[in-house]
Amino acid sequence: MAPTYRLKTRSTVHEFDLIHALRKQYNLRTPSVIRGIGDDAAVITSKAGQWTVLTTDLLTEGIHFDLRTATMADIGFRAAAANLSDIAAMGGTPHYLLVALAFPRTASKQHVLQLYRGMMAACRPHRIRLIGGDTSASNGGWFISLTLIGTVLPRKALFRNGAQIGDSLYVTGTIGDALAGLKLLNEPPARVKRHSRTATLSVRHRQFLIGRHLRPTARVAEGQWLNTHGFATSAIDISDGLSGDLRHICEESHVGVEVNLSALPLSPACRAYAASRKLDPMNLAMTGGEDYELLFTVSPHQRRRLERASLTRGFPLTCIGEIHPSRFGLQALSHQGKRHRLANTSYTHFT
Amino acid sequence: MAPTYRLKTRSTVHEFDLIHALRKQYNLRTPSVIRGIGDDAAVITSKAGQWTVLTTDLLTEGIHFDLRTATMADIGFRAAAANLSDIAAMGGTPHYLLVALAFPRTASKQHVLQLYRGMMAACRPHRIRLIGGDTSASNGGWFISLTLIGTVLPRKALFRNGAQIGDSLYVTGTIGDALAGLKLLNEPPARVKRHSRTATLSVRHRQFLIGRHLRPTARVAEGQWLNTHGFATSAIDISDGLSGDLRHICEESHVGVEVNLSALPLSPACRAYAASRKLDPMNLAMTGGEDYELLFTVSPHQRRRLERASLTRGFPLTCIGEIHPSRFGLQALSHQGKRHRLANTSYTHFT
Repeated sequence: MAPTYRLKTRSTVHEFDLIHALRKQYNLRTPSVIRGIGDDAAVITSKAGQWTVLTTDLLTEGIHFDLRTATMADIGFRAAAANLSDIAAMGGTPHYLLVALAFPRTASKQHVLQLYRGMMAACRPHRIRLIGGDTSASNGGWFISLTLIGTVLPRKALFRNGAQIGDSLYVTGTIGDALAGLKLLNEPPARVKRHSRTATLSVRHRQFLIGRHLRPTARVAEGQWLNTHGFATSAIDISDGLSGDLRHICEESHVGVEVNLSALPLSPACRAYAASRKLDPMNLAMTGGEDYELLFTVSPHQRRRLERASLTRGFPLTCIGEIHPSRFGLQALSHQGKRHRLANTSYTHFT
Repeated sequence: MAPTYRLKTRSTVHEFDLIHALRKQYNLRTPSVIRGIGDDAAVITSKAGQWTVLTTDLLTEGIHFDLRTATMADIGFRAAAANLSDIAAMGGTPHYLLVALAFPRTASKQHVLQLYRGMMAACRPHRIRLIGGDTSASNGGWFISLTLIGTVLPRKALFRNGAQIGDSLYVTGTIGDALAGLKLLNEPPARVKRHSRTATLSVRHRQFLIGRHLRPTARVAEGQWLNTHGFATSAIDISDGLSGDLRHICEESHVGVEVNLSALPLSPACRAYAASRKLDPMNLAMTGGEDYELLFTVSPHQRRRLERASLTRGFPLTCIGEIHPSRFGLQALSHQGKRHRLANTSYTHFT
């Protein structure tokens, strides 16, 4: 089950409870299912020994996107990126897309085609084929469900449960940007005006952050590269927020972790935004989901090889912590050298 | 794209327009996609030559189901049956299920688990594995999106486009039952009372028809059998209604058809219902979708072999017409020997 998105809403059902219940009841062991419910994507194998990786994501209007702040093409792009990111986190290559779509009676053909245009724009660099889908009317706004099918090298896939004590924790790119972008989009106009007057955030930084929210890039090439070279012992994509996704790795791998807050990779734009709004940028980085960066663990003897190779390939990576025994729990080391337990601050819409 | 369901609603977008637009724009020819947008399911092939069949369906509250007349388990069962039927119509074997689910904040864990229970009840005879999914909150009722993955014999799959002039048209089981069941569920209580007083429809017939609507059986074994024996030249499942699904076969195969109305297989319950409500049972059979029976064409020299084999296997089949040249169009032959053109009476929610 792909983790849920980040806008907070309330329900009596908690997704992770549900995943546990479904896993217990329906995740029957069978040789053809390499990985079932509970990772970024499912992995199945065929008689010929090929491994297929499958993932599905559902985006709902008012929960995952807001038509007042995003175009249909943006929404399509982001929906595809979220799915691509799940395949990236397994080290796989995406191939085929199925799209199930429900839209209100007020939607026009142009809206629908723009949504597809956005989706296919995110898919084009990966030469993904749209092979089918379903469309339906909706009495309750837009619902977009994507299923992406890919392949991964047999006996080689990145799972959440491979982290070992002593492994280093890495993250690609910068984190917190997408949350900053979302916050910028949701600022009331008055506030925007006040801030623009004081010119605390440049147009370039503003555009960068909003772009990171609306048009995120899934780290497909990076995931494949980590996988084929055997660099990573475990991996996940950051969709719930670093804090929440780290928890998934630790729970699945039965380990603890220490995150070095001063090492978190922050973009200049994210720092400038945080300074202008008097926010702690570490908070944005720890809780912000939907950056779609990869979070992964690397064994000590692979660290040097990884860092050298990442320079050659131009893949930005940052070491942000270390894996500890399970009893250590999830801890953060602050700038001042103080340790504190990581709160379960990931956003889900079922908390 | 799987055909849409049958409750009538209005929108400015017509699904079939959309399918044509998407086909034109994104259905790029590539050797690995055997069948893309526009059939019951997609078929892809791998390097090892295996054929995978994939289908996705989206069900939305108030459009495809009504929580006042169906339990969560019924809804789950029917959602799974609709997907199973798409695989059946290709002659495939279903293996894996992905479920994307959005539900309102008022939903309880029990509701969600009952929905899964219904889905898995429909899947159990086929030993299908639930391998993943996604859940989300919804501001607009329940949305259920299922993706089913199966296999089909390489170079052997039933498509919509293989019907030849002179082929006979067959249908499995009986048709019109599901629509009668839906109508029974939607009758206002006063009407039910009046009818129950006159006892024109037995409880057994009523239960049969409602069961055919709420718990339809996908013809998976029949589809596989038709496919492995090479009996069928084309096939589709009846989800839009005989009239609409026949149109799909004729359009894709570039042929016309004559349907013999007096041959349509009607259940005793459907006949009794039609008589009690003063309806034409032929109308129920022609326009009623969601029976999930298979509609297929058979070449003249296979007819005898097919009919003999169906008796041995106990698969109920009925010959209901014949394929004609395209210029013949779609015609129905009535009891009185009169011919009339088939109206495009299939229900879609985008007409």
